[in-house]
Amino acid sequence: MALKRGALTLLKKIYGKERIKTSREDRICYAYDAVNTKYIPDAVVFPLSAEDISQTLALAHSLGFPVVPRGSGTGTTGGSVAVEGGVVLVTTRMNRILDLDTDNLTVEVEPGVITGDLHKAVEAKGLFYPPDPSSSGISTLGGNVAECAGGPRAVKYGVTRDYVLGVEAVLATGEIIRAGVKTAKGVVGYDLTRLLVGSEGTLGVLTRIWLKLLPLPAATATLKVSFRSMEEAAVAVARIIASGTLPRCVEYLDEAAITCAQSIADLDLPLGCRAILLIEVDGSDSEVIVSLESVMKIVEEAGAILVEKARNDIEAKHLWTVRKKVSPALYLFGPDKINEDIVVPRSQIPAMVKKIELLKKEFGLPMVSFGHAGDGNIHFNVMIDKSDPVQKMRADAVIHELFDYTLALGGTLSGEHGVGITKRPYIGKEIGEKELELMRGIKALFDPKGILNPGKIF
Amino acid sequence: MALKRGALTLLKKIYGKERIKTSREDRICYAYDAVNTKYIPDAVVFPLSAEDISQTLALAHSLGFPVVPRGSGTGTTGGSVAVEGGVVLVTTRMNRILDLDTDNLTVEVEPGVITGDLHKAVEAKGLFYPPDPSSSGISTLGGNVAECAGGPRAVKYGVTRDYVLGVEAVLATGEIIRAGVKTAKGVVGYDLTRLLVGSEGTLGVLTRIWLKLLPLPAATATLKVSFRSMEEAAVAVARIIASGTLPRCVEYLDEAAITCAQSIADLDLPLGCRAILLIEVDGSDSEVIVSLESVMKIVEEAGAILVEKARNDIEAKHLWTVRKKVSPALYLFGPDKINEDIVVPRSQIPAMVKKIELLKKEFGLPMVSFGHAGDGNIHFNVMIDKSDPVQKMRADAVIHELFDYTLALGGTLSGEHGVGITKRPYIGKEIGEKELELMRGIKALFDPKGILNPGKIF
Repeated sequence: MALKRGALTLLKKIYGKERIKTSREDRICYAYDAVNTKYIPDAVVFPLSAEDISQTLALAHSLGFPVVPRGSGTGTTGGSVAVEGGVVLVTTRMNRILDLDTDNLTVEVEPGVITGDLHKAVEAKGLFYPPDPSSSGISTLGGNVAECAGGPRAVKYGVTRDYVLGVEAVLATGEIIRAGVKTAKGVVGYDLTRLLVGSEGTLGVLTRIWLKLLPLPAATATLKVSFRSMEEAAVAVARIIASGTLPRCVEYLDEAAITCAQSIADLDLPLGCRAILLIEVDGSDSEVIVSLESVMKIVEEAGAILVEKARNDIEAKHLWTVRKKVSPALYLFGPDKINEDIVVPRSQIPAMVKKIELLKKEFGLPMVSFGHAGDGNIHFNVMIDKSDPVQKMRADAVIHELFDYTLALGGTLSGEHGVGITKRPYIGKEIGEKELELMRGIKALFDPKGILNPGKIF
Repeated sequence: MALKRGALTLLKKIYGKERIKTSREDRICYAYDAVNTKYIPDAVVFPLSAEDISQTLALAHSLGFPVVPRGSGTGTTGGSVAVEGGVVLVTTRMNRILDLDTDNLTVEVEPGVITGDLHKAVEAKGLFYPPDPSSSGISTLGGNVAECAGGPRAVKYGVTRDYVLGVEAVLATGEIIRAGVKTAKGVVGYDLTRLLVGSEGTLGVLTRIWLKLLPLPAATATLKVSFRSMEEAAVAVARIIASGTLPRCVEYLDEAAITCAQSIADLDLPLGCRAILLIEVDGSDSEVIVSLESVMKIVEEAGAILVEKARNDIEAKHLWTVRKKVSPALYLFGPDKINEDIVVPRSQIPAMVKKIELLKKEFGLPMVSFGHAGDGNIHFNVMIDKSDPVQKMRADAVIHELFDYTLALGGTLSGEHGVGITKRPYIGKEIGEKELELMRGIKALFDPKGILNPGKIF
């Protein structure tokens, strides 16, 4: 159901000349997210207010065209691409931090605020917004909430869901609702807030978000730990989690991920290093010292070749910059990336690492894994050339095996990327038929004509 | 819609003789929760498995009788009373801790596990389940999850919702669903887990719960701080929250609550004490020392008359025991309690305290307030004799004014007690018509015949 000429005229009335794009060149720019799949929308609009969005959706609901909400388009499952055409609604111009309340440790934001900008703003006031997805320098909070983004600090601090107190959203009909609270607690009625969190733009378009903040930890310390094998690193992770010390980050890079990292910057690794853990602890000064000692003892006993502590903020930041660039650097191994973010119980990481080694041997495709070991959240990538149908078929077989094993270990198919279009064919592996029926029922309730981000999740 | 004889015969087939109660004496015992309102059910059943519950609900769905799930019945809004008759389904015999996973910091429980029993079990393994509602010695985890219980530690650790990873539940049709994950993260499909959390037994009966645990903090310290006035205490709370130190508990008792507490045990208070704060900090040994110093400085500057640190665990436990018994001791002031658990932004506690003083003067009824100051969560009580219609009318007027002011301050009508039957007349003050329509739509989707805990929330 593409956009009719009449609809375009009406959209131009809402957005004027400046805030609607209809040329092919402009539309191509909004045809992608981080999944390399192109769907060119019929128009791209840039709302400034909930009212703009409300009018757009009321129009879409009445005339029947798809609306796909989108922030910066950094998603990795195709959540923000217009698979059925229609209008891409870009929230990046609604980017005000409206109320940073240092007395109540809360902040009210518009959906287009860049995650990293919020970090800077709250940290300047001695406060802390823990969720820090790898794309935080670009990604928007609206996108983070819609996908329930995670990031390395989730080990200790949880994911985006844990910081959303309430939201304002526009429904597919154009109606504006408020859900949740601005206070520390609230249990009046069903939890529409968390129903919207992680709903991937299919139930409503977020226009305001109330977030919970924490006091900024006084100190942090970052370790780079080198291992001879990924298996040893995985055992170290399991032991750290079981030890009672909860670092805020426990990230890992396997051998192929290290190669990618080294292509960005020399990591000065010891000979024989085939796996790295990046571990960060935080808290009061004294707590950091105690946690560091505990973690260092565990990794040494687990067989670390070298344990290096970042000597200052610059060294620590450098390590994180390299870590965040691993994902884009993967194209070293092939033009196309199949990117999964499975989660297994943390104690099962060694088992999953062994499985991945077997898959590499069995299928002979370049596979890179890295990610949030402390959560059991593994970013697994197969690099292929999609134009080669044999490679594509083998990669699909790898993913099927990986997913089946993940679920057999008691895991889930996505820790933080969502389902979008790329995991849609697999959702039935994890979610039962009755549960899917309930989800479809909720979708129909919020969006009776199915105009909001159609073709996603199920 | 009461229970027909045929239904009773079929229920007896499921439950045998031992696990169904139909005598009036037995049924009266399950006609109450902590709200003093009696609704005698037609039968009381004690399932041992999801299968029992599934059969019961399939029967109820087909024959059309209400089923009201219930744990220990400690709720304070009437959530577990059978207002339309039917069957009360008591989950207390499903009380196994099934899998305490120290490697992954998770635990799988049945809904009838007593919250305090879980505390003991996990603490014995060096782990921590933070939610600790005042009734934790009696309340069940199923009830805690259904109501999204809070408790004093929510200041730092959040509420029950923040610890529920996944659930198994029986729908009103008898179908069994699973929602959520057993892992640290998971974002596949809509968040049915948190839709069930806090749904007050209206969307499904919980049969399994997967909870997240934390490492047990190494140390805690508890302070009893005496103030000349509640206003001074409230200012101290606001300053603590804004200071960057996050105690795990910041509780308060106003003058009337102190009288109740003193009726339980001599608190040995200084002359002129009209308000108390109970503050607990936790963390590593050194962190506790630093936090204590910071908090003590703030309360002294805010005008505390006396700051006393519990010298050992026994003294600390004693303070918490007294605090937990304040609520039952309120009957000192009248035979009937109207109990609200409003939340305001933490910085608005002083404003709310002033308002409560005005209400006391204006209406001349005994009013007691205490609770989770650190969350802005105030347990406000009006003690009356309900048989006196004038007192009842004036108490209702107090509650209306209190609720309107709460919402005007940006607060919510319930922080942890839910809506149930007692707050049902007021839900429209906080939740908009469209939002209520969505909630009713969700209810109809999960329970098309409205047999599950009817007459609650909306």
